[in-house]
Amino acid sequence: MNFVNNHILSVSQFDLPAINQVFSVADRMVPYVNRQRVTRVLEGCILGNMFFEPSTRTRVSFGCAFNLLGGEVRETTEVRASAIVKGESFYDTARVLSGYSDVIVMRHKIEGSVEEFASASRVPVLNGGDGANEHPSQALLDLYTIRKEMAGQGKGIDNLRIALIGDLRYGRAVHSLCKLLTLYSNVHFTLISPPELSLGDEYISAMRGAGHKVVESMDLYAGISHADILYVTRTQEERFPTREEADLYRGLFRLNQSIYTEYCEPNTVIMHPLPRDSRDDANELDSDLNENPNLAIFRQTDNGVLIRMALFALILNVENQIEDTARDVNWHTRRSSESGGTP
Amino acid sequence: MNFVNNHILSVSQFDLPAINQVFSVADRMVPYVNRQRVTRVLEGCILGNMFFEPSTRTRVSFGCAFNLLGGEVRETTEVRASAIVKGESFYDTARVLSGYSDVIVMRHKIEGSVEEFASASRVPVLNGGDGANEHPSQALLDLYTIRKEMAGQGKGIDNLRIALIGDLRYGRAVHSLCKLLTLYSNVHFTLISPPELSLGDEYISAMRGAGHKVVESMDLYAGISHADILYVTRTQEERFPTREEADLYRGLFRLNQSIYTEYCEPNTVIMHPLPRDSRDDANELDSDLNENPNLAIFRQTDNGVLIRMALFALILNVENQIEDTARDVNWHTRRSSESGGTP
Amino acid sequence: MNFVNNHILSVSQFDLPAINQVFSVADRMVPYVNRQRVTRVLEGCILGNMFFEPSTRTRVSFGCAFNLLGGEVRETTEVRASAIVKGESFYDTARVLSGYSDVIVMRHKIEGSVEEFASASRVPVLNGGDGANEHPSQALLDLYTIRKEMAGQGKGIDNLRIALIGDLRYGRAVHSLCKLLTLYSNVHFTLISPPELSLGDEYISAMRGAGHKVVESMDLYAGISHADILYVTRTQEERFPTREEADLYRGLFRLNQSIYTEYCEPNTVIMHPLPRDSRDDANELDSDLNENPNLAIFRQTDNGVLIRMALFALILNVENQIEDTARDVNWHTRRSSESGGTP
Repeated sequence: MNFVNNHILSVSQFDLPAINQVFSVADRMVPYVNRQRVTRVLEGCILGNMFFEPSTRTRVSFGCAFNLLGGEVRETTEVRASAIVKGESFYDTARVLSGYSDVIVMRHKIEGSVEEFASASRVPVLNGGDGANEHPSQALLDLYTIRKEMAGQGKGIDNLRIALIGDLRYGRAVHSLCKLLTLYSNVHFTLISPPELSLGDEYISAMRGAGHKVVESMDLYAGISHADILYVTRTQEERFPTREEADLYRGLFRLNQSIYTEYCEPNTVIMHPLPRDSRDDANELDSDLNENPNLAIFRQTDNGVLIRMALFALILNVENQIEDTARDVNWHTRRSSESGGTP
Repeated sequence: MNFVNNHILSVSQFDLPAINQVFSVADRMVPYVNRQRVTRVLEGCILGNMFFEPSTRTRVSFGCAFNLLGGEVRETTEVRASAIVKGESFYDTARVLSGYSDVIVMRHKIEGSVEEFASASRVPVLNGGDGANEHPSQALLDLYTIRKEMAGQGKGIDNLRIALIGDLRYGRAVHSLCKLLTLYSNVHFTLISPPELSLGDEYISAMRGAGHKVVESMDLYAGISHADILYVTRTQEERFPTREEADLYRGLFRLNQSIYTEYCEPNTVIMHPLPRDSRDDANELDSDLNENPNLAIFRQTDNGVLIRMALFALILNVENQIEDTARDVNWHTRRSSESGGTP
Repeated sequence: MNFVNNHILSVSQFDLPAINQVFSVADRMVPYVNRQRVTRVLEGCILGNMFFEPSTRTRVSFGCAFNLLGGEVRETTEVRASAIVKGESFYDTARVLSGYSDVIVMRHKIEGSVEEFASASRVPVLNGGDGANEHPSQALLDLYTIRKEMAGQGKGIDNLRIALIGDLRYGRAVHSLCKLLTLYSNVHFTLISPPELSLGDEYISAMRGAGHKVVESMDLYAGISHADILYVTRTQEERFPTREEADLYRGLFRLNQSIYTEYCEPNTVIMHPLPRDSRDDANELDSDLNENPNLAIFRQTDNGVLIRMALFALILNVENQIEDTARDVNWHTRRSSESGGTP
């Protein structure tokens, strides 16, 4: 896979060498995210951070990653106010906006919209999420987190035992992660969801076809008992036909510290694509897990910045120039000693 | 006309020498917009990009232009949330915000609001559109596009034959362009609109008074048959008293490739202030024109960045320092070979 | 008080040495705000400007202050669209967002929310306003303005005579300013408000307990007749239980030039936390005061940039490096000769 000047629209574009290339560049971004070093490699370069569906977290993460490379960010969060509501096609929007920046991140709730946009764009486009379809940087940061967490235990991704829990039907993060994990060897998937929210057959067939073991279950306690990774999800209520239907499933599987202690192996890592729903009737990951050192959910979002920096660097072909313009940070930086800090 | 430290509120401020000065500076911005060179001339300078009426395209274009000069952008898109709804006057808003930046772009839906704002501002203000009144940078980029497109055919703006099509009553882009074209010699205007959306008499009188030929028509095919430029517009439904009234006129004049081939001269250039309405009941410019090399609508928006860079450079008096801090781009830049790229 | 890497959540954190330290750094920021000098001391540093309650003025002021130090700004104004509405806790939001920047400014309408947020943040958090509770940078800029205005008259803050006028119940700016003034000696407070909007007893007790004189009154004319500072406020209608209740008090105390001339001493300074409500039924400060040289309301907002730059510089420990990367401004700067310009 050649990254330079290419769109990143789907995890399906990635094979193992491409993934390893992204992860290798991401590793080299650590001193910049940890605020030991500053680089200006993209000084003068402009990101068009075009979010036509709201997402504070993802939008700020992409913007931050670009700033950390020294670039500038122009953005939009105007969902209802854009020219699209005046009847403008994605083709036109893309042709216009691609004249304003060097690379674009786009999010829109319509599935396939980002691909349509990219086909008309004159600069590379990174899919920041198109409805229930794709969100490739999320899948890459999840996989990168798994690799890092497992490496800390002397393991790899091959032979991984992962339990996926919750809304496996509407959660695009789950879909994309399953696709990427399928590229590895001998992964053991335990899928824990109500039947109505189970993972689509096409995913399961692909996983089994590639030689992985897939077990479906509604038994949370059995399912989490022999896992390296628990990947917990929120009920994606905004993707359900009605709010009432979503309410039926919220809070069905809940994890807290006492369940963890009783059923999980000591080093089982807990992940979540976030946001976690902490309201009483949901609370899929109780706050009493916050001091659990295996709770990796904030390491995931920290890793997201590394992954997004790597993708930008590869697309713009500056991954070998990062250090040329770098210097030490001259301001007082974040409390690196705090729990939960960048690992 | 002296640009340094002055507001740009109306096309009426511009005479031919001023226009030529803007265009000359805009020409020199091409290497920066084409991403061959990077300049840092405005490093540390701050644009206040104050959009109290939504406009993704115009807002991002101004912000991008400022970033391309090396400056920083602070902005607002908060239409309902600003202090103006708490009873703050434009005078106060301007006095406060002009303490936060070196230059301001302001858009607001109330006609005359930007002028009122500018009168209290302590920094130069550029009108980014005040209702149906003025949007001078749009008129300048349209005129600049006409000049460039005509130059490609060995012609100038004098003796231009231009057909203006659609909603000529509410389209401020049309009004301002007519004012600017009036400064040239012997322009032949063909105005194609339903009587209810015809161009105001004051514009027609001014055009005729300056010796230009003006023909009004409802016959699209005859009107476009001897034109250098077709300037097509969208029905400005947001300016109509009611949506129903706007609906009466949408889709009245439609141009597509077969009509173009049958009625237009081979080199007739198609322009549009964008967004074009691509919904079935409007579709004033069919998408089958997208491959027509004379469709200049995306060259217009690209030119907008050049014009806005030029205006900023002139207002801040840095137009002769651009190259002092410039260097070659070090990242992989956009596909310059693609159709529709910056010419 | 040690600023480095610490949160700034409340004016209660400040003692006189800390205040003097902030003011001393703020004084040194004048050449940068006046656009004589540019510094790049925070080049590569990122501010997370997180406004979960709208505020164009305060948000842009913080962003501008950070840009003037050479840093980058990522921000959100997405009130309804943030993950918080999907059930995310402030703890989670803070843990995630603090991975994206070096320092955070947060505003949220819920009292105490910023403190909760800060307790989970891995980077220093500056309170940009949490409901009716705290807005420390506003109080500091008000106090700094009082100090500067009094210094121009050869006076200090000790022995100040200040009249606070209007909605003293819901106006957090008033509350915080009273706390800070209590640190000085022998301040004479005149509190002019309807009984229903009077200053809370806890504030008055603290002021009297520290030896200050406090007089409550409903007589505007008597109250303003022997004051160094008039601090006028808007009815904070968004804090009232109902809009109708707020309407009862709007416009109760109005100041204009003829009242000022008749009742005030010649050098009495007029302040207001802004926005002032200029609608006919409110109009607490008439526009005929705009030419009055003692109207300090826009000097207040200008001073806000100095104070916010000082806070950022102290938190990030760069206050002694500002000049290291500084140079003269190379563009044409604002009209310094205009009335109301930065003093």
